[in-house]
Amino acid sequence: MSNPSVQTAFAWLDQVAWNDDGLVAAIAQEVGSCDVLMLAWMNREALSETLARGEAVYWSRSRQQLWHKGDTSGHFQKVCEIRLDCDGDAVLLRVEQIGRIACHTGRHSCFYRRLAGEGDAAHWAELEAPIAGADKETR
Amino acid sequence: MSNPSVQTAFAWLDQVAWNDDGLVAAIAQEVGSCDVLMLAWMNREALSETLARGEAVYWSRSRQQLWHKGDTSGHFQKVCEIRLDCDGDAVLLRVEQIGRIACHTGRHSCFYRRLAGEGDAAHWAELEAPIAGADKETR
Repeated sequence: MSNPSVQTAFAWLDQVAWNDDGLVAAIAQEVGSCDVLMLAWMNREALSETLARGEAVYWSRSRQQLWHKGDTSGHFQKVCEIRLDCDGDAVLLRVEQIGRIACHTGRHSCFYRRLAGEGDAAHWAELEAPIAGADKETR
Repeated sequence: MSNPSVQTAFAWLDQVAWNDDGLVAAIAQEVGSCDVLMLAWMNREALSETLARGEAVYWSRSRQQLWHKGDTSGHFQKVCEIRLDCDGDAVLLRVEQIGRIACHTGRHSCFYRRLAGEGDAAHWAELEAPIAGADKETR
């Protein structure tokens, strides 16, 4: 997915501190619940497309391609607000999560494991099960 | 700051997908307000120390050293909960932000700029001023 009509030569994009791979970290937070849903990455085109579409478009580092979240699953993220942090190397998307499922495991949030216990007994405990009906990867 | 008494040979640390630099992205979210405060990085020792102290310890990429947040400013982050995401390459800290200032600019959150306008007029608009009295870097 590459849209040549999307302009990437804007001053606001120059103010992002892209890393050596041309990427910026992107946190998605659900409006309403304020739950942190996921952390992904964007390149210049992904961020520009996100603004143009009003829906989250990330850069898939594993597939090395633009990733319009929801294209496979229908679980799009409508973007209500885009914020930039103090040193410009992270953005925060405030989103409406369609289907309430952000995680590719079928869960609401990717952060479904909590550190429990102490010392030798410390472990990651699962807080939530996949939502019923989410039986496929939700790209 | 290196504490040889902090163990880093735990199974729960092995489940973190450390990147090529031995780091994991760490999002700090304030309990209560649910505001996303900042994004920083941790190495194995920083995450282990965070659990041991109950306060956020990051890895400063610019200074290449452990960074016990608040050591300079007093703006410590008491860690209520540590979460891990689905693919293990991001953690979410749920914190109590001492002094309500997380950002080194003296603001509550590092994400104080919001994308406003469209097309050629798009720009990052500042949403909040530094909190009165915060006149130094708040490491």
